[in-house]
Amino acid sequence: MKKITLLTLLVMTATASFSQSANAEISATIVALEKAALEKWNQGDPSGYINLSAPDVVYFDPFIPQRLDGIEALKELYKPLTGQIHVSRYEMVNPKVQATSSMAVLTFNLVSFGGETPQRWNCTEVYRLEKDNQWKIVQTHWSFTTPSLK
Amino acid sequence: MKKITLLTLLVMTATASFSQSANAEISATIVALEKAALEKWNQGDPSGYINLSAPDVVYFDPFIPQRLDGIEALKELYKPLTGQIHVSRYEMVNPKVQATSSMAVLTFNLVSFGGETPQRWNCTEVYRLEKDNQWKIVQTHWSFTTPSLK
Repeated sequence: MKKITLLTLLVMTATASFSQSANAEISATIVALEKAALEKWNQGDPSGYINLSAPDVVYFDPFIPQRLDGIEALKELYKPLTGQIHVSRYEMVNPKVQATSSMAVLTFNLVSFGGETPQRWNCTEVYRLEKDNQWKIVQTHWSFTTPSLK
Repeated sequence: MKKITLLTLLVMTATASFSQSANAEISATIVALEKAALEKWNQGDPSGYINLSAPDVVYFDPFIPQRLDGIEALKELYKPLTGQIHVSRYEMVNPKVQATSSMAVLTFNLVSFGGETPQRWNCTEVYRLEKDNQWKIVQTHWSFTTPSLK
């Protein structure tokens, strides 16, 4: 009985350790993907986010009147912004990834420095592990942190 | 050869149908959970969302200065709002669920009628299938649709 209990405990510990390290790996992968796309965006290049998004991506930001659906619509939205963004420095505050084996949600606050005052954002990205074993964004939600309303 | 091809096709079709119907089922379940919590909220009762959220839930809305982490923090945020919300009618516009077997993201636009002018929201909810086979919210993001900034 004692043996079985010990064995069960060992298996449980091993499973938990694997699960924790798998989560840590997914988390590191996803934060790195996001930062690479964001750093291109900050230089006026939306291609990082376009290439990182799945065909069925859905998208919110504070400038569009309703959710935008699909990669083609996202390309159209981003096209006129090419070369228009100049962020000299950013802080990704407290990024957190909550993951399962095939889907994960990344959340963070973002402070972007470039213009006169820093821009403060809330961001949610949902990533899905695709058949080619690549993580792609299926949902993006950008909003202002505590916007001052009229 | 023909037989194998036909068999393969049948299996593929069956798999695709199962996958589609599984997705449709997850989608219906999640939209129903969200609507039930939202309808309580609209009557000033945050308990629907509290009970539907996982211990590790993370949360954004336009009134908080940074992401809020954990169910206890969410309870504290919602407590003073109890009895303060009176929404007489709402429209959940174009809800969409993108699902894997254990995580799913629900997005929609929301129009809430109650005060002088309707309130327009963007919403992203990420649900995770827990060990007790219940879907729980692990991430909530509410933001204003096209807010008029000062």
